[in-house]
Amino acid sequence: MSKVRVAVAGYGTIGTRLADGVARQEDMELVGVADVAPTLPIRALYESGMPYRLFLVDAKRKPEFDALGIPVSGTFEELLDQVDVVLDAAPGGIGIKNKELYLKHGVKAIFQGGEKDEVADVFFHGYANYEKGIGQRFLKLTSCNTTGLIRAVDALDRMVGVEKIAITIIRRVADPGDTHRGYVDLLRPDAVPSHQAVDLMHIMPHVQATGLLVHTPVTHGHIINIVATPKKTVSKEALLETFREHPRIRVVRLADGFTSNTALFQYARHLGNKRSDMYEIAVWEECIGFSGNDVMFAINIPQEAVTIPETIDGVRACMVMQTDRLEAVGLTNKYLGLKPGR
Amino acid sequence: MSKVRVAVAGYGTIGTRLADGVARQEDMELVGVADVAPTLPIRALYESGMPYRLFLVDAKRKPEFDALGIPVSGTFEELLDQVDVVLDAAPGGIGIKNKELYLKHGVKAIFQGGEKDEVADVFFHGYANYEKGIGQRFLKLTSCNTTGLIRAVDALDRMVGVEKIAITIIRRVADPGDTHRGYVDLLRPDAVPSHQAVDLMHIMPHVQATGLLVHTPVTHGHIINIVATPKKTVSKEALLETFREHPRIRVVRLADGFTSNTALFQYARHLGNKRSDMYEIAVWEECIGFSGNDVMFAINIPQEAVTIPETIDGVRACMVMQTDRLEAVGLTNKYLGLKPGR
Amino acid sequence: MSKVRVAVAGYGTIGTRLADGVARQEDMELVGVADVAPTLPIRALYESGMPYRLFLVDAKRKPEFDALGIPVSGTFEELLDQVDVVLDAAPGGIGIKNKELYLKHGVKAIFQGGEKDEVADVFFHGYANYEKGIGQRFLKLTSCNTTGLIRAVDALDRMVGVEKIAITIIRRVADPGDTHRGYVDLLRPDAVPSHQAVDLMHIMPHVQATGLLVHTPVTHGHIINIVATPKKTVSKEALLETFREHPRIRVVRLADGFTSNTALFQYARHLGNKRSDMYEIAVWEECIGFSGNDVMFAINIPQEAVTIPETIDGVRACMVMQTDRLEAVGLTNKYLGLKPGR
Amino acid sequence: MSKVRVAVAGYGTIGTRLADGVARQEDMELVGVADVAPTLPIRALYESGMPYRLFLVDAKRKPEFDALGIPVSGTFEELLDQVDVVLDAAPGGIGIKNKELYLKHGVKAIFQGGEKDEVADVFFHGYANYEKGIGQRFLKLTSCNTTGLIRAVDALDRMVGVEKIAITIIRRVADPGDTHRGYVDLLRPDAVPSHQAVDLMHIMPHVQATGLLVHTPVTHGHIINIVATPKKTVSKEALLETFREHPRIRVVRLADGFTSNTALFQYARHLGNKRSDMYEIAVWEECIGFSGNDVMFAINIPQEAVTIPETIDGVRACMVMQTDRLEAVGLTNKYLGLKPGR
Repeated sequence: MSKVRVAVAGYGTIGTRLADGVARQEDMELVGVADVAPTLPIRALYESGMPYRLFLVDAKRKPEFDALGIPVSGTFEELLDQVDVVLDAAPGGIGIKNKELYLKHGVKAIFQGGEKDEVADVFFHGYANYEKGIGQRFLKLTSCNTTGLIRAVDALDRMVGVEKIAITIIRRVADPGDTHRGYVDLLRPDAVPSHQAVDLMHIMPHVQATGLLVHTPVTHGHIINIVATPKKTVSKEALLETFREHPRIRVVRLADGFTSNTALFQYARHLGNKRSDMYEIAVWEECIGFSGNDVMFAINIPQEAVTIPETIDGVRACMVMQTDRLEAVGLTNKYLGLKPGR
Repeated sequence: MSKVRVAVAGYGTIGTRLADGVARQEDMELVGVADVAPTLPIRALYESGMPYRLFLVDAKRKPEFDALGIPVSGTFEELLDQVDVVLDAAPGGIGIKNKELYLKHGVKAIFQGGEKDEVADVFFHGYANYEKGIGQRFLKLTSCNTTGLIRAVDALDRMVGVEKIAITIIRRVADPGDTHRGYVDLLRPDAVPSHQAVDLMHIMPHVQATGLLVHTPVTHGHIINIVATPKKTVSKEALLETFREHPRIRVVRLADGFTSNTALFQYARHLGNKRSDMYEIAVWEECIGFSGNDVMFAINIPQEAVTIPETIDGVRACMVMQTDRLEAVGLTNKYLGLKPGR
Repeated sequence: MSKVRVAVAGYGTIGTRLADGVARQEDMELVGVADVAPTLPIRALYESGMPYRLFLVDAKRKPEFDALGIPVSGTFEELLDQVDVVLDAAPGGIGIKNKELYLKHGVKAIFQGGEKDEVADVFFHGYANYEKGIGQRFLKLTSCNTTGLIRAVDALDRMVGVEKIAITIIRRVADPGDTHRGYVDLLRPDAVPSHQAVDLMHIMPHVQATGLLVHTPVTHGHIINIVATPKKTVSKEALLETFREHPRIRVVRLADGFTSNTALFQYARHLGNKRSDMYEIAVWEECIGFSGNDVMFAINIPQEAVTIPETIDGVRACMVMQTDRLEAVGLTNKYLGLKPGR
Repeated sequence: MSKVRVAVAGYGTIGTRLADGVARQEDMELVGVADVAPTLPIRALYESGMPYRLFLVDAKRKPEFDALGIPVSGTFEELLDQVDVVLDAAPGGIGIKNKELYLKHGVKAIFQGGEKDEVADVFFHGYANYEKGIGQRFLKLTSCNTTGLIRAVDALDRMVGVEKIAITIIRRVADPGDTHRGYVDLLRPDAVPSHQAVDLMHIMPHVQATGLLVHTPVTHGHIINIVATPKKTVSKEALLETFREHPRIRVVRLADGFTSNTALFQYARHLGNKRSDMYEIAVWEECIGFSGNDVMFAINIPQEAVTIPETIDGVRACMVMQTDRLEAVGLTNKYLGLKPGR
């Protein structure tokens, strides 16, 4: 069986990780990545020997790349002619423009959370609604926070059923190195309900949700505290067991040194993961509580890489590589090295 | 009627504010403040003309004060002989030692949240359990977060009854200028349940509570998101009305510019409040949500000054200045300029 | 002698402090302040009893103020008809537009550092070039960093002469509460030379200067480290003596608790200063060093209030209230409570 | 020729990087690493398949490792019997105790900057005083800031001679994930002169130096601004050329996106470097200025990995692997992939 041919449009924070993730899928071929300017990630691509082929969104800027000696394999449209599906990680609002090209070149596309819902046929999450994406032309992934949140709530929901949730999102306000946004020494709440709660209801319409999001001046991972009303009583140990069996959830302990969102990032550095990335959300064993029938638990969202597995699931769905949800996510997990029991 | 004579022990972050608050009570006399060393607050006391008399905890260090020209009115024990009650704002763990002196000199005392519960006869909150403090010898105030939290939950409880709460505390990790603690670029969760939830159940035993606390690298106020299960359904407007009528709760709007905990601090600066303090917790109009019967709302806790009103209520209770809860808190409020309808 | 009548245009971070400073000058009358919208400072002005009269830049927005019960005394142009000089603290770029109104109404104006140099006849600093501002129509103040820097370098220059300086500006990236700018966990250098070095050479053309500015994620004061080559050898004690005698420079010690820029801010809070402001730059006794003939010393710039004294000096200059530099700055200092020997 | 056998004592922030660096030296053998507890780096070592053998400092704690399934290869003393030299990266103050063991087992050792100078025979820097370390038994490396500083000043010194320097160190206050130290929203200066200036004079006694260090709340690299008085005039282009030719210095441009210390960290992430490390200090092209004959330039110090190359140089020196300085550092550079011209 020939491999599904994939392109990545936009080689920034998300695009770099999408490329890494696709490159690890043995049943996919990363044909190339496309971008506009010789940004830091592209300079690093060059310095590390061009493991991925580079295509230019704007052919007129080729001299800038030539001057730096960065090899270019063609234009973005030439790339589109060589692939089956594009993972669009362009800055928010560009994807809708790119869609014209995708239609023109007859390729499928998966957009990231920064685009408006209307860009796609399906609002997609690999674990929660894989079936909806099967054979579709345009998918849109949930945002980083929502992807991680749904991962956890879907696991609980498949275990005992979830009636409603109320969440508190402690949001990292910038990625490391960002200079276009950021706050200093303040906590900034957004109006309730946060879009993550609304989006969860879109994907999981049988769950009622509200949420508050508070921006905080940190860069290494969001923390979401979830108060969930399950349909059946759930014990702490049973909940932990469910989370431990989930290949995209890592159960950790404060007592072991996982004392913060940044400790998780450090752990990924020490693992030697490329770009120090972590695909898994984390659940802290000591941060689970109960109030009446409600269960409360906290998760960590590594914002830079968390959507990669579910996006790759999207490739499997839209390209009809697998029709079974668990088979599909299982292959993604296998190629990404994601295993239960961590 | 003669004024109740009050001393403040420890002229640091809390002690300075206690002194300011007592000095505004027309039925109390601030006899003096006591401390050990010529710290910045004491140097500022001197530079601003010694509005409060200063007593020394350690007489041997008087030469240090003399060298700076800072007038000293006597020793801590001499101060104790001139007062009816001491507000103990010494660093955590010192209060229990000071208690020996309070017993020796026959004065009552109110300790802050940093001391262990055993230091006092009653764990006290002016609004929630004023009656328990009446005539008692030693009170201990709830901590800053717990004081603000109880203020809000007590208001809701007196309105419709509260069955249970699950809270997320987004905690400022240091006060402005602190060099003895602090984190950089991380979110640090503590084990569940946080002491604030446990302490609330101590003061309001009919409410079930759990909570997660996450330390964040900011200095200007904690934010607590509360998911409460009320005994009767409550509307957003009715809740806001209850909060607006509470002299120690300020209802604010993101849309008006109160966009963060620090915006509230800035507002206190612009009000010209001494030390830029704010006694009121704030509730954001736009940050109220509902999930089934549960109501979710967020409050801001100005950690440096929030416990002052309830501590002064404690003076009223232990000295039996008023036996009626509302009369007592009403007088505290009046002298502090706290009015409904903000 | 009748008082000089002053207006403040723009009641934001700088405008609020200009109003406070002018209100303390016994030979000036603060006729009113002007702004566009009911911002937090204006809501605080209202809540604190309207100590300053308010005029509207945009008369059409009066209903917004009426709805809040905020009394309005007229329009900006009506204010201009009642004053001799305007202190323009509008956002950068607005001052140049306001200048048309100032010309139309025949008033003088002093612009802040955010405007381009061309807006004014003279680039002004009260201590360094007072004489140049005498009788002029339009002055522009140096920026906050430059004002504090020149204050210190001018003091050294008048003492022993300064040949050249190389400075490192560790810049606070946002004011407390700012949500329109800010960085998280990064140090960002700007290209050399920083405008502060260039501006200093404009005001003090006999000094050669270069400098690096690095943005840091803090809010409570810039720190500038100055390496100066004096014309004559200077001792540490002589330098400190010169700084101690300067009413706008505060010599402090790490050992006394002034351990950071924020400690200085805390000190202003404890002094009970309005808005917790400090006009003085600070010099740390322990942060003076020598390298060959060069002297190195560090200053703290309280960015919110540091330009207020020199702006008020500007009123004295342009209105020809005093023709002697030291008499002029002396009066400003006296009314602001600035004294040598701190 | 048999490989020099190396152990690393302490597998924390520095020890992990020392192990990585030694493992890349083809003429050295990393026999193992030693630590006390199953910390995060050791858990990551285990999860990533034990690329390095682990030895236990405290044999009594072996059950903790057994319970986690982490294979242990013996005790620290057993490790010492298998090596020629130990790189001691134990927490500051432990190295001096470990030295007894090194003497007992007849191994050489290189200590990190956290130890007192007395621990070693030579205070060492690979580029600046390689010859002094040849054949010595105990070396102590300069600290991270000093190592990077000397790298740059030594390059300038070998080019034109350096008479004196005055430096401003903008210090990152914590490493990513640190919870034992950190500040929030403050800049904290230390007393002048900083130890880095003093240490530089120790290594380069012909240079006069002073410096100010200011702690800042960031984690991804120190920035040092250096004002140097060279013995001969130097042009910007010649200086850049010298730095570009230095394999451990990376010349970067703000205009290319290297806008901050964190951008450099991000670049290392994108390069795919293990643990996202960077060995090179960086110099910004746009941050070079001149004041009279003095040259001013800014360098970035990646604190976690910067001392690794010079420590490996130390192995070469003390084990007399090479007696020529340039040959020695050249081999270290070759194996670490450090090349001129970046």
